Amino acid sequence: MAEAPTPLPPGSSIGVLGGGQLGRMLSVAASRLGLRCHVFEPGAEPPAGDVAHRVTMASYDDEAALRAFAESVDVITYEFENVPATSLDLLGSLAPIRPGRTALAVSQDRLDEKAFIADLDIPVAPHVDLGSPDDLAAALAEHGPGIVKTRRLGYDGKGQVRVTPGGDLAEATAVLTGTPTIFEALVPFEREISVIVARSLTGQVVCFDPGENVHRDGILHTTTVPARIEGATADAAAAIAARIVDAFDYVGVMGVELFVAADGDLVVNEVAPRVHNSGHWTIEGCVVDQFQQHIRAIAGWSLGDGRRHSDAVMTNLIGDDVETWQVLAAEAGAGVHLYGKGVSRPGRKMGHVTRLV
Amino acid sequence: MAEAPTPLPPGSSIGVLGGGQLGRMLSVAASRLGLRCHVFEPGAEPPAGDVAHRVTMASYDDEAALRAFAESVDVITYEFENVPATSLDLLGSLAPIRPGRTALAVSQDRLDEKAFIADLDIPVAPHVDLGSPDDLAAALAEHGPGIVKTRRLGYDGKGQVRVTPGGDLAEATAVLTGTPTIFEALVPFEREISVIVARSLTGQVVCFDPGENVHRDGILHTTTVPARIEGATADAAAAIAARIVDAFDYVGVMGVELFVAADGDLVVNEVAPRVHNSGHWTIEGCVVDQFQQHIRAIAGWSLGDGRRHSDAVMTNLIGDDVETWQVLAAEAGAGVHLYGKGVSRPGRKMGHVTRLV
Repeated sequence: MAEAPTPLPPGSSIGVLGGGQLGRMLSVAASRLGLRCHVFEPGAEPPAGDVAHRVTMASYDDEAALRAFAESVDVITYEFENVPATSLDLLGSLAPIRPGRTALAVSQDRLDEKAFIADLDIPVAPHVDLGSPDDLAAALAEHGPGIVKTRRLGYDGKGQVRVTPGGDLAEATAVLTGTPTIFEALVPFEREISVIVARSLTGQVVCFDPGENVHRDGILHTTTVPARIEGATADAAAAIAARIVDAFDYVGVMGVELFVAADGDLVVNEVAPRVHNSGHWTIEGCVVDQFQQHIRAIAGWSLGDGRRHSDAVMTNLIGDDVETWQVLAAEAGAGVHLYGKGVSRPGRKMGHVTRLV
Repeated sequence: MAEAPTPLPPGSSIGVLGGGQLGRMLSVAASRLGLRCHVFEPGAEPPAGDVAHRVTMASYDDEAALRAFAESVDVITYEFENVPATSLDLLGSLAPIRPGRTALAVSQDRLDEKAFIADLDIPVAPHVDLGSPDDLAAALAEHGPGIVKTRRLGYDGKGQVRVTPGGDLAEATAVLTGTPTIFEALVPFEREISVIVARSLTGQVVCFDPGENVHRDGILHTTTVPARIEGATADAAAAIAARIVDAFDYVGVMGVELFVAADGDLVVNEVAPRVHNSGHWTIEGCVVDQFQQHIRAIAGWSLGDGRRHSDAVMTNLIGDDVETWQVLAAEAGAGVHLYGKGVSRPGRKMGHVTRLV
């Protein structure tokens, strides 16, 4: 039997690629455990910089900066998924990267991700690799209405076009001729849930209670726990999430979004190899939240107690929503989180509020 | 009627005098609200530095450093109570200091503190200002056993000597001839509680539920909520805390320690003009914890919802206790906090653990 890994002791340093709000909350979680974060971020004034022990502001192709960063930390994780592979090659030669490269690479490509999950006999939405407008016409004829999505670099509804048989395909055609895309058939579902799952270095797997998600304009609007699903459905969703992280030999927190059909059948929509917006409620709802769970996992610690002690509704503050901060701050039962971003833009995640209910 | 003050908007900077674990947790709380902390600390490697936007490492008599610090922030607060008055004069001329100077000055002197509280018709322990060994002999004759305490700079049981009529007074005499001291009579009590009270810039006052404290070797060992007291006693304790902060025109969080007699009578033991060790349980037990409540108050925000959603026991990790971190991290229901102090010494607060019960 393999020896149990030695957990990183308090005082150790964690490198975080990406300095957004997820990095910010990871850094706070690390501090609780006596660990320090060193954030690597190309952009100026990164939100995570306010609470990081150290910040390197440099481009992802700055070899010297990458090298110095990796040599200063004990383990590297990421909150930003589109770090160039060559940068990861360099970093990975100097410090362990957790979660591993496989999960990152696979989840960066919608087609590869669906193939990986389908290979585990876990249902995914019917989909077609689109090489040409003819492929799209054929997909519509076979599957009915759906969504054309870029295979890579899509998030928060970006790079997605709804398509219907007989509808105007000009926009979708423009997208699919410029970049690799897939067609995803619409899956009939009653609600969307997500499972935030954590897997430790020794293979321990724990899931937070599934949250029920509502999107607006392609961006997560609210997550409500508990989700309005049967206990058996929740168990099945957790089992699916566990199979996925096991198959990746994953270390850290992963967000798994699923569609729930009226009969309780589950289809995996997508996975994110990182802490996830739909898990923010865990800060108020659990003793150990998703951010601490991720830090524990990548630091080789045992996972913490993620049981939900309170029901909660998390609502994102998108763009100008954040202007209501004074009202939210005065509201009973509301935990307000502002990400320290100087400029609010439409569609930009500026903060969130979690209400215990 | 005076106009309501404008709360400091997200992005504002809070200066914190002192870079220990209280500053560390204040900085985390500020980040939740989109506010940044700038920590001023003479010592190297301050725990708060791991999660502060900025750290100034300089002596409290470095005028240039104090000036630059004050000019870089919108409001100044402190986690360390023994900042020299001349430094505060300079700082206060450049930025508001909250809580105000009066509470700080009064609470730095045990005699002044007791006089201030007694003037509010709130019971304090019988006490005598000690000018000489003769005063001590007289105090013992009148009040029976008690404690000789230095008037200033005492914490965690430091600068305190137990004395009994007819006992050996050599140690107490040595203390009282070197520095101003008082004699405090022992108050018969059934338990010790503390009220963590917050007062906003507009005079709004809220209290967290009283915690019951157990000390070991003069240092807080555990705080348990709820305290085993009647509801009427809890209400009376909260009312006392509110009268004290009102009398100081206080802004921020104050810790008020009280003795509870068998019949429920209350005597104020001491007050601390800052977030308090006996309020650490609020991190896990409430949506808005004492650190956020303090930041809200000094930033001119409305106070948050400090209702207790869970019962909790907080246990300090003193000195070598912290070596058990791996065991604690694996314990169900335990929220572990490590302060990032490199060196553990006997009596040094290295972390704490809060267990929801």
